[in-house]
Amino acid sequence: MRLSQFHLATVKEVPADAEIASHQLMLRAGMIRKLAAGLYTWAPLGLRVLRKVESVVREEMDRAGAVELLMPTIQPKELWEESGRWAKFGPQLLKIKDRKEQEFCYAPTAEEVITDYARNELKSYKQLPVNFYQIQTKFRDEIRPRFGVMRAREFLMKDAYSFHLTQESLAGTYDAMYQAYTRIFTRLGLKFRAVEADTGAIGGNASHEFQVLADSGEDALIFSDGSDYAANIEKAEALAPTTTRPAPSAELTRVDTPTQKTIEEVAAFLKVTPQQCVKTILVRGAEGLVALCVRGDHEVNEVKAGKLAGMPGESELASEEEILAATGARPGFIGPAGLPAEILVIVDRDAAVLADFVCGGNLDGTHYTGANWDRDARVTRVEDIRKVVAGDPSPDGKGTLQIARGIEVGHVFQLGNKYAEALKATVLDENGKAQVMLMGCYGIGVSRIVAAAIEQRHDDAGIIWPEPMAPWRVAVCVINPKNSPDIAQAADALYAELKQRGVEVALDDRGLRPGAMFADMELIGIPHRVVVSERGLAAGTLEYRARHEAEARAITQDELFALLG
Amino acid sequence: MRLSQFHLATVKEVPADAEIASHQLMLRAGMIRKLAAGLYTWAPLGLRVLRKVESVVREEMDRAGAVELLMPTIQPKELWEESGRWAKFGPQLLKIKDRKEQEFCYAPTAEEVITDYARNELKSYKQLPVNFYQIQTKFRDEIRPRFGVMRAREFLMKDAYSFHLTQESLAGTYDAMYQAYTRIFTRLGLKFRAVEADTGAIGGNASHEFQVLADSGEDALIFSDGSDYAANIEKAEALAPTTTRPAPSAELTRVDTPTQKTIEEVAAFLKVTPQQCVKTILVRGAEGLVALCVRGDHEVNEVKAGKLAGMPGESELASEEEILAATGARPGFIGPAGLPAEILVIVDRDAAVLADFVCGGNLDGTHYTGANWDRDARVTRVEDIRKVVAGDPSPDGKGTLQIARGIEVGHVFQLGNKYAEALKATVLDENGKAQVMLMGCYGIGVSRIVAAAIEQRHDDAGIIWPEPMAPWRVAVCVINPKNSPDIAQAADALYAELKQRGVEVALDDRGLRPGAMFADMELIGIPHRVVVSERGLAAGTLEYRARHEAEARAITQDELFALLG
Repeated sequence: MRLSQFHLATVKEVPADAEIASHQLMLRAGMIRKLAAGLYTWAPLGLRVLRKVESVVREEMDRAGAVELLMPTIQPKELWEESGRWAKFGPQLLKIKDRKEQEFCYAPTAEEVITDYARNELKSYKQLPVNFYQIQTKFRDEIRPRFGVMRAREFLMKDAYSFHLTQESLAGTYDAMYQAYTRIFTRLGLKFRAVEADTGAIGGNASHEFQVLADSGEDALIFSDGSDYAANIEKAEALAPTTTRPAPSAELTRVDTPTQKTIEEVAAFLKVTPQQCVKTILVRGAEGLVALCVRGDHEVNEVKAGKLAGMPGESELASEEEILAATGARPGFIGPAGLPAEILVIVDRDAAVLADFVCGGNLDGTHYTGANWDRDARVTRVEDIRKVVAGDPSPDGKGTLQIARGIEVGHVFQLGNKYAEALKATVLDENGKAQVMLMGCYGIGVSRIVAAAIEQRHDDAGIIWPEPMAPWRVAVCVINPKNSPDIAQAADALYAELKQRGVEVALDDRGLRPGAMFADMELIGIPHRVVVSERGLAAGTLEYRARHEAEARAITQDELFALLG
Repeated sequence: MRLSQFHLATVKEVPADAEIASHQLMLRAGMIRKLAAGLYTWAPLGLRVLRKVESVVREEMDRAGAVELLMPTIQPKELWEESGRWAKFGPQLLKIKDRKEQEFCYAPTAEEVITDYARNELKSYKQLPVNFYQIQTKFRDEIRPRFGVMRAREFLMKDAYSFHLTQESLAGTYDAMYQAYTRIFTRLGLKFRAVEADTGAIGGNASHEFQVLADSGEDALIFSDGSDYAANIEKAEALAPTTTRPAPSAELTRVDTPTQKTIEEVAAFLKVTPQQCVKTILVRGAEGLVALCVRGDHEVNEVKAGKLAGMPGESELASEEEILAATGARPGFIGPAGLPAEILVIVDRDAAVLADFVCGGNLDGTHYTGANWDRDARVTRVEDIRKVVAGDPSPDGKGTLQIARGIEVGHVFQLGNKYAEALKATVLDENGKAQVMLMGCYGIGVSRIVAAAIEQRHDDAGIIWPEPMAPWRVAVCVINPKNSPDIAQAADALYAELKQRGVEVALDDRGLRPGAMFADMELIGIPHRVVVSERGLAAGTLEYRARHEAEARAITQDELFALLG
C-alpha cells in the first residue's frame, strides 16, 4: 500500500477522555474514531488489524471442524422468552420495537437463535456433533461504556455453539475449542493464559477464560509456579490451612474504637496484625441475611460464597439500613460474636482456625478483643469463601500461587442442557428416542483482542504489534524523494520487490519530513522499518530498525529479505 | 470440503410462503433459514456464496482505490437530524432507544455518519479525492418483507462514499466506480445492464443503476437496439412525435358510457382504438390539483411528471373525494375538456398531437367524442410525462427501444453537496478558503446479488451457479464407498489432487444413494460433477457432467484437470 493513497490519520494530542493506553493509542494512531458513547468507527488502519485477527480466528475455527454461518443481529423477543432471558438478561439487552410494534433485541449473544436453528435442522444423533460459529457484530448496552473498543457497546465477536448427544462428545469438542483458542492466541503473537473460570448460575461442567496478560488488565489471574494450575480469582480455590485452632486464652472484651472501621485502622489502633482480626460482611442469602467471615488480611470471594447452599447464586451486599436493623450497628462495627440467631454465620477456613481474635462489637464505635469461635461466636458452617492471595499453596498441591493481570478475550463453556431443554431441542438417538441435546458455547471478542494486544505491547512511542496483527509488516520510508528521482525509483523498486515476495509493505511516500514519518511508523507499530536515503543509496545499504529495538543499523537489501524470511 | 463434515441441509418440499424461484431454491438448497419476517440466518452453504460475492466486491473496490473502513450499525439520532432525514426517511428507519432513553437508528445507509467522519478527518483539499467504503449489515424496516433475501429487512450491503473539491473530481471517481461495478458483475458471471436512473429528490448530476437481467425482475429496463442507450423506465425519455396535430374535423359530443371506465372498455364500446383516446389522471401538484393527460395506449410516468415545475417531486394521486369535488365526476369519467380553470392541464407530447379524440366527460357515465385541444380542452403545458414503450425511437436517435426485466443490485450516484452542506463538511481549498465538499455514493446489495443470480440462472432441478459464485466448483461423488475400499481411496486421491491444484472441491462422502446425491448437487448448483464408481474405475474414467449440460460423459482424470484449467 502506498500511504499517499491510504487515509492514514495519526494525531498528536492524547484525547482527554481516553484513560488507558490502548484507547489513547488507537485514537492517536487513527485506528478508531468515536461516533457516540461506546460506538466506534473502525478507520482504515484499525480495520486492517481487525481483519487480520478475524481471519486467524476463522482459519483456526475451520481447522477445528467448526462450520460458519451468519445469524441476524436482530432477534425476536419470542425466542428470548422461551429461554427466560428476555426478562433476566437485564438492561444490557437493547430492546427494539419495529414499525408493527413487534419486539426484538440487538443480539448480545445468540444461544437462543442457534438453539432454534438446531431444533429445526438437527433431527438425528447422526448429525452430531456439530459446531456452528459466526463472526458478527454484537451489541451490549453497557451502562458505562469505556476504554474504547475494550468495553464498547457495539463490537465484533466470534461466537460458536456446539451440539451433542453425550457429555463425552461435548467434552471432546470443548477440548478441540480449547486447543483452537490456544493456537489462535499463539499465532497472534500474544502472551496469554487459559484459566479455569466459574460456571456461574448456568451450572455446566467446565469453563475456561482466555486472558491476554497485561498489567492494566481488569481481571486477576491466579497461577501456580509449580504446575499448570491457573484460574481466575473468582474460581481459584484456597486450600484449608494445615494448622488447627488453639484453645481460647483470652477473655472476650469490648473495647472502644470510636472512628476505626477498616481492618487496617482497627489493627493499628489495637496494635495487632490484620491476621489476628476477623472481617465480617453481611449479604442477602436465599432466606435472610448471612454473615461471611474471613481473616482480616483476606477478601471475601463473592462468587464462591454465592454458590454455597442457601445462597442465591450471586451474593448481594446488605444495605446499611438492613445491617443496622439486624445487628444494631453500622458497617465497620459488625462481628460474629453475639449476632442474632436468624443470621447464618459462614466462616472461611483460615478464619476458623483463629483464637483470641479481634472482631466488630455489633455496637457502633466498639470492637471485641479475645473473641473465640463457639465460646463467643456461633459458626453455622466453615467453607472456602475467600479470594486466594499470592503465596497461597496451589490447590493441586504443587507450588505456590502467583497473581497476574489479564484481559478476557475468549471464553469456552460447557453449557449442558440449559438452552436445549428450555427450547426443547431434541434429536432422535440410536433407539429412536428423542433426547435433549447438550451444548457448548465458545466466544472470542475479536475487536477486544486488538485493544488487549496494545495493552500488552506498547511503549512511549506507540504500539508494538506482533507481526501477525500488524497493519503492514514493513514500512519503506523515503527521504526527500522529490529532490532525487534515484531515491524515489529505488524506493519504488524495493516496494515492488517486497510485494512480489508476498511481504505486506507500506511505502511511506507521503513526502513528510523524516522525523514525522518515523514517529508515525512507530506510533502505528510497524514491526520493520527501512529507510531509503541518498546516503544509503550511495553506500548500497538501507537503514533498518525493528520496532522493538532501540537503534537503527545499516543492512543490505539481501539481508533485509533474509530477515523477513 | 468433505460433505460428511459440512452441515448441508437440502429439503424436498417447496416452502409455502416462497413466491419466487430464488427464495424457493435458497430454502430448498439450505442456503438460508427464516428467523422472523425479513430476517434470515445464512446457513453454511449460503454463507459460502455470500462470502464469494463479498470478496469480489472488496477486491474490485480496493483495485479502484477505495479505502475500507467500518462504521457502527447503530447511529445517533443527532446526525440524522442534521441531515433532516430523521423525520423524512419514513418508517423504514428502525428507531431505537437505549437504556438512557437516547435515540438511535439501525443504519439503513450511512451518508450522515460518513459525512460526520469526513468533516472531522478531512481538512485540506490535498486529502481529496477519497473514497471510503464498508461492507456491513444494514436494516430497513420494510412494510412487507418478501422474496427471501431479495427484500429482507436485515441485509448485507457494500456502501461507498467519495469526497471531492470539484465536480470534475467527482465525475472521475463516479466513472471509476462505474467501471469497478462493471468488473464486479462481469467477474461474478452475471448478465447485467447499467441503466441511467433518475436522480430523484436529491438532485445530483448523474445516477446509474446496475440491474441483473431476469424475467422475474421487479424493474423494467429500457435499452436501445441500435446504441448503448439504457435507462430505467422512470428515467427513459420519450421523444417528441414527428407528426403535427391535424385540424379538428368533428364536433365535441357527449356520449353515454354507463359502465365503461377503462380506456380499453371505452375504446371497445365506442369502436375506436386506445390511440384515439386521451387518458387523464389527477394528481396533487405543489399548489392544487394537476391533470396529467397521455394517449390512451400510454402510461403516465409519475417520476418524470413529478420533476416538472409546479410539481412536488413525487406526484401523488388525488383521492376519489378530491376528484369528485373538483370535477363533479368520479375516476374513469375525467377528461381535459371543461375542467375548472384552477386545475393545471399537463399534456404529454404524443397526446398533444391528437385531434378528434375520446376523453372522459367529467360527468359520471359519459365520455366525449370529437374532443380537440384548445377548442374544447385547455392546455397549460405540453411535456414528456409518459412511460416509453417497446418500439419507441431511442432518445439518442439510434435504434428503437426494447424493454427487459431486471433486479437492481447496484447504484452509483453523484450526490453533489446535499449532505456536506447540511453537515457543514468543508475543506480548505488552495487559497485557504473553506469549501463544502461534493460527494458521490455507491451501493451494492451484496446479499441481494445471491438471490438475483439464482433468478437469472436456474432450472427445474435447481440453481446453476456461475463458477465464481458457486459454493464449490467441483463435486466429487462417490458411489458405494463402503462396498469398495478402492473406490473410497480413488475418490480421496482425486479430492486431494484437486485441492492440491487449488480447485475448490466438495467430496460427497455422505453415503447417499446416487440419485439423492446427484439431485443434491444439481439443487445446490455445483458447476462440475464427477462420479467415482466401480465401473469407471475399471475403465480408468470418471463420469463427468457440467451443471448446464443435459448428459454425462466419461472423461479421464487428465481431461478433468484440463477442463478445470
